[in-house]
Amino acid sequence: MPELRKDPIIGRWVIIATERGKRPHDFVIEEEVVKGGFCPFCPGNEHTTPPEIFAYREPGTEPNTPGWSLRVVHNKFPALIPQGDLDRQGEGMFDKMAGIGTHEVIIENPDHMTTLTNIPIDGFVGVLSAYRERIRTLAEDPRFKYVLIFKNMGRAAGASLEHSHSQLIGLPIVPELVMEELNGSKFYYNWKERCVFCDMIRQELQQKVRVVKENEEFVAICPFAPRSPFEVWILPKMHYSSYDQLPEGSYRLLAEIFRETLQRLEKSLGKAPYNFILHIAPIGESGLPYYHWHFEIMPKLTLMAGFEWGSGFFINPTPPEDAAQYLREVEL
Amino acid sequence: MPELRKDPIIGRWVIIATERGKRPHDFVIEEEVVKGGFCPFCPGNEHTTPPEIFAYREPGTEPNTPGWSLRVVHNKFPALIPQGDLDRQGEGMFDKMAGIGTHEVIIENPDHMTTLTNIPIDGFVGVLSAYRERIRTLAEDPRFKYVLIFKNMGRAAGASLEHSHSQLIGLPIVPELVMEELNGSKFYYNWKERCVFCDMIRQELQQKVRVVKENEEFVAICPFAPRSPFEVWILPKMHYSSYDQLPEGSYRLLAEIFRETLQRLEKSLGKAPYNFILHIAPIGESGLPYYHWHFEIMPKLTLMAGFEWGSGFFINPTPPEDAAQYLREVEL
Repeated sequence: MPELRKDPIIGRWVIIATERGKRPHDFVIEEEVVKGGFCPFCPGNEHTTPPEIFAYREPGTEPNTPGWSLRVVHNKFPALIPQGDLDRQGEGMFDKMAGIGTHEVIIENPDHMTTLTNIPIDGFVGVLSAYRERIRTLAEDPRFKYVLIFKNMGRAAGASLEHSHSQLIGLPIVPELVMEELNGSKFYYNWKERCVFCDMIRQELQQKVRVVKENEEFVAICPFAPRSPFEVWILPKMHYSSYDQLPEGSYRLLAEIFRETLQRLEKSLGKAPYNFILHIAPIGESGLPYYHWHFEIMPKLTLMAGFEWGSGFFINPTPPEDAAQYLREVEL
Repeated sequence: MPELRKDPIIGRWVIIATERGKRPHDFVIEEEVVKGGFCPFCPGNEHTTPPEIFAYREPGTEPNTPGWSLRVVHNKFPALIPQGDLDRQGEGMFDKMAGIGTHEVIIENPDHMTTLTNIPIDGFVGVLSAYRERIRTLAEDPRFKYVLIFKNMGRAAGASLEHSHSQLIGLPIVPELVMEELNGSKFYYNWKERCVFCDMIRQELQQKVRVVKENEEFVAICPFAPRSPFEVWILPKMHYSSYDQLPEGSYRLLAEIFRETLQRLEKSLGKAPYNFILHIAPIGESGLPYYHWHFEIMPKLTLMAGFEWGSGFFINPTPPEDAAQYLREVEL
C-alpha cells in the first residue's frame, strides 16, 4: 500500500511507494566515468580560473600558483554578479531586481581523481572549514541575506566539470525554500517551545529504523518523508542554527560521519550523481532557537516529471527505512 | 546583467541570465528517437493494459478491443491506489496516511507514431475533451480533492513508454504547489479585487513581447518569471477557474493554439522532452473569482541541481522575451 507522508518541518507531502520498495540494483544508475582532458581546476592551470579569493596553501607559495590544498575562486560563468545595486523596480504588475550576488567555486583538493569519498580526513575537514570561512566573510557584506553552499556531483546532478568541487551562492534575498523551513520550524516552536529538528533527532535515535550512522556529536538519518530515494540528512545533535557556531573541534567528527555516509552511498549506488546542500539560518539571524543547521544529501535516482512539477510533491519508490537499513549494512 | 524576477502569482523568484541569452542551438537537446518494439498502448494489445475506464470508440466495438480513437486505463504501476480509506495517523511526531488516489493513463490516439504535434485537430480536441470528462467523473468521488492532469513527453521528462499519452492523478489532498497558487492569487484578489491571471493576460497582450500566439479565446505566452527556458503557458482570455466550465465550442480553439505551440516548440528545440501540466481549481471549488485555469508547458532543457534544490528558485539562461520572439518567428 503506498503511503503519503508529511515532512514535519515544511509540511511537504511525499508518496512513498512502499510496495515497490526499490533497492539499489533496481535503479538505472548513470555511473560517472572520469574522462580526464584539460582541467582548469588542476594545479598548474590556476591562471585559467578567475583569481582566487581564498585558499589553503603551503607557506611561501603565491596566490594563483600551485601549492594549495583547497582553492576558492569566482565562478567563470556566474549566475549572479557581485557588482552594482539591487535596483528593485516594477515592469507593470511584475517585479524584478538586478541579479546581485556572488557565485564561488570551492575546489576541494588538487588531485583530479580525489572526491569526497576518498579524500584524506584532513582534506574533508579543510573543505568544511572553508565553508565556514566563506560564510563568515560574506556575512560582513550588507547586500547579502543568505549564503547557499551546495555540491553537484556528476553530470546528471548538474556538474559541468568533473574535478571535485562545491559551490557557494551569496544571495540578496532569503530563498523561498529556506523561508518555508524557517516559517515551518518557527510555527512548531511557537506551539511546542521545542526545536522541530531536535525533536526529530530524539525520535530517530529512539526508533533507530532510519538512522544510518551516529557519532558523539552528529547523526546521519534517512528523513521520514524524503523526496529522493536514499536521501540522507546529517545533523548536529547539539542545537545550533548557524553552521559557523560549531566549535572548531567538531568539524573533524562532522567530516568523519559525512565521508562515511558518502562512502556508504557510493558502495550502495555506485558512483551515482548526487547533490548536497547546507541548510543554515540567514545571515544576521544567528542563535535562532527554532532552526537547526544540517546537510541534505540527495542522490539523483529519479526524475522530476509532470506530477512533481504540478503538485510540488514527490513520488519516492524507496521507503527511508529500507534505504537506511541498506546503507547501515553495506560493507565498506 | 543577470536579473532576479518574481512570479506574480506565488512570488517565486527566478534568476534570468539575460546576458547569456541562450538560444535553441545552445542547448544540448536529447532528441527522442522512436524505438518501436512491443507497445501495450497499440491497438491489438488492449489486454496487456488494465481494463479501460473510458474511451472514444467506433459504434459497435467492445471495450478493450481495437476500434478506439482514445482510451483511458488505470496505470499498471500506480503511484496511488483507489481502494481503502485515508486512515490518517501519526508515528510519534510524524504524520502519514494511506496512499489513496487514482492514477490513470490517457492513451491519446491509436497510432504509435502520432504525437500531439502531428495529431489531426479532431484528435487533439478529443484529448482535451477526455480530460474534461475524467475531471467531471472524478469530481463525484468525495475522497478526491484534486485532479492533476499532466504529460511527460520523452524519457528525460519521465515518460517510460513512447506511445503518446497523458496521465491523471486524483488526490485526497490539494497539493502544495496548487495551494500556493490559490493562496497567492487570493491574496492578490483581496488587495486588487481583480484576478492576477486576468491582469497578467491584459499586460502581456499590451506589451506583446512575451506573446507567442493568440486567437479569439486563448493566448500562449512565455511567462515573465519562467523556471525553464522556453516555458509557455496557455490561458483562456475569459476568466474561468475550472477547466470544465469552458463552453463546448471553445475546445477546438484551445486545441488549435495548443497544437501550434507544441509545433513551434518542436521546430525550435527539436524533439526535446517536455512536461505539461493542467492547473485548475480544486474539486468542489468552482467559480472562484481569483483563480484562472491554464496549461503550463515546460521543455526539459536544464537540470535541477543543488542550487535549485536548496533555494527553491531557478536559474534560467533564456529570457522569456527572447524565447517568445524565437517561437513567434520560427517557420512552421
